[in-house]
Parts: sequence; structure tokens; C-alpha cells
Amino acid sequence: MQNIIDDLNWRYATKKFDPSKKLSDEQVSTLKESIRLSASSYGLQAYKILIVEDPALREKLMEASFGQRPVVDASHLIVFCAYTSVKEEDAKTYMQLISETRGTEMKNLEAFQNGIINSINNKSDEDILAWTSKQTYIALGQLLHTCASIRVDSLPMEGFNPKAYNEILGLDALNLTATLACPVGFRHEEDPAQFNKKVRKSNEDLFDLR
Amino acid sequence: MQNIIDDLNWRYATKKFDPSKKLSDEQVSTLKESIRLSASSYGLQAYKILIVEDPALREKLMEASFGQRPVVDASHLIVFCAYTSVKEEDAKTYMQLISETRGTEMKNLEAFQNGIINSINNKSDEDILAWTSKQTYIALGQLLHTCASIRVDSLPMEGFNPKAYNEILGLDALNLTATLACPVGFRHEEDPAQFNKKVRKSNEDLFDLR
Repeated sequence: MQNIIDDLNWRYATKKFDPSKKLSDEQVSTLKESIRLSASSYGLQAYKILIVEDPALREKLMEASFGQRPVVDASHLIVFCAYTSVKEEDAKTYMQLISETRGTEMKNLEAFQNGIINSINNKSDEDILAWTSKQTYIALGQLLHTCASIRVDSLPMEGFNPKAYNEILGLDALNLTATLACPVGFRHEEDPAQFNKKVRKSNEDLFDLR
Repeated sequence: MQNIIDDLNWRYATKKFDPSKKLSDEQVSTLKESIRLSASSYGLQAYKILIVEDPALREKLMEASFGQRPVVDASHLIVFCAYTSVKEEDAKTYMQLISETRGTEMKNLEAFQNGIINSINNKSDEDILAWTSKQTYIALGQLLHTCASIRVDSLPMEGFNPKAYNEILGLDALNLTATLACPVGFRHEEDPAQFNKKVRKSNEDLFDLR
């Protein structure tokens, strides 16, 4: 178990990436699969994940990220996008996926489908977006852990202009909004942040045993 | 890298725990440390994590969780709680922690402190809670990955009554609200959910390469 903790201690918010170092195809696949296998509410995965390599697009995104260079310097930029609406139709599509994957008859999924639809219908548009947005944070948490395990550096970012991202990436038309960005790649040997001691609350401050 | 994907495929939302099986102290420590090392906005960790073992408390929490038995049957119940307010004082306390950990002079942390304070002051009470809540989802994502890696079963849960949780756990007085619950322990050999094939969107549906 110690190696997991070593992995997580190795991770830090990388402030300067080495632009000459690229992830291998296998590394990209592992990161994608770890996002794909993330838990989400009802298993709905009400999000889409953009993997951005195009330099011109990333220049524009950097401008919409307060000029943070990791957006262009990292090997890949992962942008988490939450669906701004979830409709009955989405629940039905999901039931079809379950039915195909598990060979379950659709009529045996009716109760589950109705549960999801009831939940959706009880939420305002704002509640839906808050709910789908949160799910992308679970996927981010799982991604960061995977990155650390395979020694890929990362910088989880909330610090960007979501409206500008949506415009640059054409997300409005897809009913999506950008919630998180995460450049991934390899630290620059000159990134001073890598030498900083990790700052964390003590167990006593953070945990409460009942 | 394959073993990471194997770990994540092994994980499933455990619907029936074996109440006779308890986590070892080492396993509990690993889960706690993986939560403690999670990334959070500015590194503020604006949350508290309750580890609930007390059976009487868990009976009450089960009632506030639509009767879901994992709340009482699992080895431990982890409750993620977000701070409902973040004040200038919290930013200052955090700067002191950085200063002590890294030996940085407080005057060199002023810009960072002001950045956090500006950000806090630009947020409504509602925005603050939405923001602190999301951070707990990153910690959940990291926890689920760690659980899978050390073969501990888990059930991430949004399905409970947060107001009832807050009352039962006395969270209001601590400026906290329950955002997520996660029973952890070991699957019951009779849990039929463990045999279900995992349902996930295809790479084509989930990812968009730009």
C-alpha cells in the first residue's frame, strides 16, 4: 500500500511542462480508460471529455486561461465538459446501453429508468448543471490518481473562463459547458514547484472519527 | 499500466456488504492518506471527512439514506462534508500552514493570500458552497481509485438527505454540510451486482479529439 501513497506524494500541480516531451499512445489510452471507468451518478456519465492537441486551439485556450502556459506546453490538454441538460431521452439511451451490454430486457430496466427520470424532473436547469458538473470532478480525481501511478504530470485547473472555452470549442451547440481543464505531460526540470514540500491539513484537522 | 485498468474494472458500486469483514488499520490509514493527499482548489481543502463506525449513528444515517443497508453493513462509512463558508481567516490559517511546512516567509505569501481572498469575496454564499462541494468530489474520485487498487469495496452515494445527515452528525454548528457518503468494506458473496458487466459509453461517445 505504501507505493500508492508514494505515487500520490509524487504528484504536484505542475506549473511548467517540458514542451518537448509527449505522452505515448499507451499512456494516453490509460488516462482515457481511467476516465471512462470513473463512477458517476446513476452511471449516466453526463459529460464529454475533450482531448486537445491542436496548437492553434490551445493558444486560444491559453488566452482564456489567464495566460497559463501549461495549457500550450503540456503534451495534451484534457477539458472536462458537463452536459447542461439531461432529458428523458438520455435516460432511455442509457437503458439501451445497459440492455445491450448486459442482455437485460428493457422491461426489467423500467423502474431504474423511472427513478432517473423522476430525479431529473425534480431538478431545475441550474440543479442539473450543478449535478453533472460535480460528476466531472470525480473523473478528475480518478485521473489525477492514474497520472500519478504512471508518472505523468498534471495540473488540475478551475482557473479559466468557461464561457470563452465554450465559444472556442463550440460547446454551446453540443449542450456542453467546460468545467475543468487538466494539462497532462511531463514536468520541466526547471519547474521550481516540484521541489516544494506538499502542504496538507493534519489528520486531526481533516478527519473526524465518530 | 494494465493493472491500473484491471483495478478500475474490478471496482463496482457494491450494493451488499459483508458485515463480518472489517478493514485493517493499515487499509483505513491508506484510504485516509489518499483523501488527505487529494488535490483541491488552491490546496485549501475546504472540507472535513467523517469516518463513522458507531453502529447507533449509522442506523440513524441509514434512515436518512432511503434505507440503504451498505450504510450500516460496510466496515466504515466515510462522509464527505464541505465547508459552507470560507473566510479571509481561513486563507490566513492556510498561509500559516504553508509558511510552517515550507519555511516560506509570510510576506512572500501575500500575493497568493490576496488572490484567494479576492476569489472568495467575489463569490456569493451559494457559489462558495458549490465550489467547496465540488472539491469533495475530487477526493471521492481519488478515494475510489485507491479502494480499487487495494481491493476494498465501496459505494459512492449522493442518495441521502443532506439536511438529515447534517442534523444527525451536528454539522451545522461546524459550518459543514454533507455532500457525499461512501461506505467502504468488503462485498458480500451474495451481492448480485458484482456479476454485472460494467456499462460505459464507448470511447467514440465519451471523447472528442481536437
